[in-house]
Amino acid sequence: MRDLCPALQNKTYFNYGGQGPLPSPSLEAITASWARIQELGPFTADVWPYIAKEINSTRRLLAQCCGVPPHRLALTENVTSGCVLPLWGLPFAKGDRLLIGDCEHPGVVSACVELARRQNLAIDVLPVKHLRGNQAQCDAAVVEAIAEALTPRTRLVVLSHLLWNTGQVMPIAAVAHQLNQHPQQPFLLVDAAQSFGQIPVEEAAAAADIYAFTGHKWACGPEGLGGVALSERVLDEAAPTVIGWRSLRDESKADLNGSDLFHHDSRRFEVATSCVPLMAGLRSSLQLLENEGSAPQRWDRIQNLSSKLWQALQGLASVTTLLDVAPTSGLVSFQINGDVPPAEHVKQLGAQGLWIRDLADPSCLRACTHISTTHDDINALVAAISTL
Amino acid sequence: MRDLCPALQNKTYFNYGGQGPLPSPSLEAITASWARIQELGPFTADVWPYIAKEINSTRRLLAQCCGVPPHRLALTENVTSGCVLPLWGLPFAKGDRLLIGDCEHPGVVSACVELARRQNLAIDVLPVKHLRGNQAQCDAAVVEAIAEALTPRTRLVVLSHLLWNTGQVMPIAAVAHQLNQHPQQPFLLVDAAQSFGQIPVEEAAAAADIYAFTGHKWACGPEGLGGVALSERVLDEAAPTVIGWRSLRDESKADLNGSDLFHHDSRRFEVATSCVPLMAGLRSSLQLLENEGSAPQRWDRIQNLSSKLWQALQGLASVTTLLDVAPTSGLVSFQINGDVPPAEHVKQLGAQGLWIRDLADPSCLRACTHISTTHDDINALVAAISTL
Repeated sequence: MRDLCPALQNKTYFNYGGQGPLPSPSLEAITASWARIQELGPFTADVWPYIAKEINSTRRLLAQCCGVPPHRLALTENVTSGCVLPLWGLPFAKGDRLLIGDCEHPGVVSACVELARRQNLAIDVLPVKHLRGNQAQCDAAVVEAIAEALTPRTRLVVLSHLLWNTGQVMPIAAVAHQLNQHPQQPFLLVDAAQSFGQIPVEEAAAAADIYAFTGHKWACGPEGLGGVALSERVLDEAAPTVIGWRSLRDESKADLNGSDLFHHDSRRFEVATSCVPLMAGLRSSLQLLENEGSAPQRWDRIQNLSSKLWQALQGLASVTTLLDVAPTSGLVSFQINGDVPPAEHVKQLGAQGLWIRDLADPSCLRACTHISTTHDDINALVAAISTL
Repeated sequence: MRDLCPALQNKTYFNYGGQGPLPSPSLEAITASWARIQELGPFTADVWPYIAKEINSTRRLLAQCCGVPPHRLALTENVTSGCVLPLWGLPFAKGDRLLIGDCEHPGVVSACVELARRQNLAIDVLPVKHLRGNQAQCDAAVVEAIAEALTPRTRLVVLSHLLWNTGQVMPIAAVAHQLNQHPQQPFLLVDAAQSFGQIPVEEAAAAADIYAFTGHKWACGPEGLGGVALSERVLDEAAPTVIGWRSLRDESKADLNGSDLFHHDSRRFEVATSCVPLMAGLRSSLQLLENEGSAPQRWDRIQNLSSKLWQALQGLASVTTLLDVAPTSGLVSFQINGDVPPAEHVKQLGAQGLWIRDLADPSCLRACTHISTTHDDINALVAAISTL
């Protein structure tokens, strides 16, 4: 995998959580798809079977990754679209409350704030930023925090599968179970930006109501293509908002009287023309990952690498890791003691060809290990940090 | 241009209004952009200046095509997103009315119907389907029809620049002027799917409130990239709905108290990660078009070709053209007398390598001429239709 990625040949890369490298065979699959569309189409009866095959096989593969049937998987442009398009169609009533994790991405939080403003909803915050301890302790603490934060009007819980800043894995299936027991049965919206392609997601994706992911981070696909797994009740109860020809059962028909013309499956949340050739690229990247081992095997390898990095950083007097045990994911977040802003450290390391990123809240640095990370990569990063 | 398009080498193509052919240099520009992003990034301080340059130069070029400053031009995935994302943020009040042309695309109409359902708005229909006569007569009839249909509560008018079914050009600038005189000053939303890349659009785009287009039809760019020109008052008065990191002034910051954190320019309607390499492809295609002549020169050539086709079809006893004068655009819509469904005729022509499309309302066939169309193409199509 590493050898197939041009991005990994001229730098030491730890920003898989920002964007993954695109393997050459995936770029070749994209351009081949474009050539095929031009050869057959681009708008002819000859090209429709090819386009349908591209869409169906991509939907099937992503649905399989998510442990859901294909009719529950919508294709999207990015994580945000996957979170926000179904969000705006959920059946809220004035006074309903949204419970939002305090490590959620500002984009999703801002969408919830605007939704709340327009529909007169209230927002509660779920504290998960300072959870520490091993995975079992963390899981129990999340469930306890939710139990404490739920109100009789809570109608939606927003929680990432893998917190993008601390690297903690959230017990999504357990939370889904917990919410099902609640009288209001709040919807569960999961930002899966950091989990998809990194850790096994079937159980969480199948349990959540909205499980939104992108192909361009840990799955190493092209930017501009992702998906969202939706629960049956979202398909039943949520109305489409950004509506285009792909939302319609018959794209040649609108009805001013508002009879239900939308797809009853996941496609009701798809919009209009998107870039079909990207699909071949994402499928190629997922296949290349699969060639390196099953999802649990890859997770194991990623954890081994992140543990090594976490431990080496623990050994540096100048560094404080955000987590007090080795992370269960490939995200290793840490602070360097002193007054130098994290962005400055990113710059200094970048000048040496070592790429990590800084985060604002909590203010820290983040390095990611993927299956393409080597021990040499880790050693080089730790050595450079020790001399900062 | 024609020689640069693989799609035009093995077929006789008249579906530019569905999707334009992608010239080889544009596909090469896309793959070169991907390679550059991998070389510099994909997520490093080294790649940000390149990405910023791609976005800024694309925004600038599309804004220039639309005769608006860059801060009024948002990049989108497709026409629908350009229409619908700002639409959901317009300041409507219960009882407001939407006036929608009867030739609008079912996607946009369905979005308006759903918006009306949720916000208790009413919908009126603007009849433009049966307009006939020359451009001046048609322009006058549109303005008259709008004057008749406007009510004291009309808050939005939805009208395509170029009707996708009949091929009529709508007098958008005159309509914008007319709406400005109205006490309610209704917003004007223009679907520019068929106009952008085909006819000069500056005047209309600068006059409309929402002027949404795609790069993958007449502009011959890649599928998955378009834009929307927005008026100053849309930027001032419309709230973003599908919110992501690109909508935010500081993407590291959300605010639960709902203080205004959004960009004040067009970016408030942009969402999140999209496919940056497509931008190089669209710019390349627009340059290749420009190399063939200015927008007015190209329009002239397109009209000459469509006139030739329209006249030849007029000469066939079995054919009725939708318009009673030669079209002012490259869209030529017509009906073949008899009981054979249009889809069947499309199939029969497709079997001979001639590609046109059928439309549902009015039920007809549509052939498009672009600057890459030849007289031989037209002769071949007319000959084939005459023997159907």
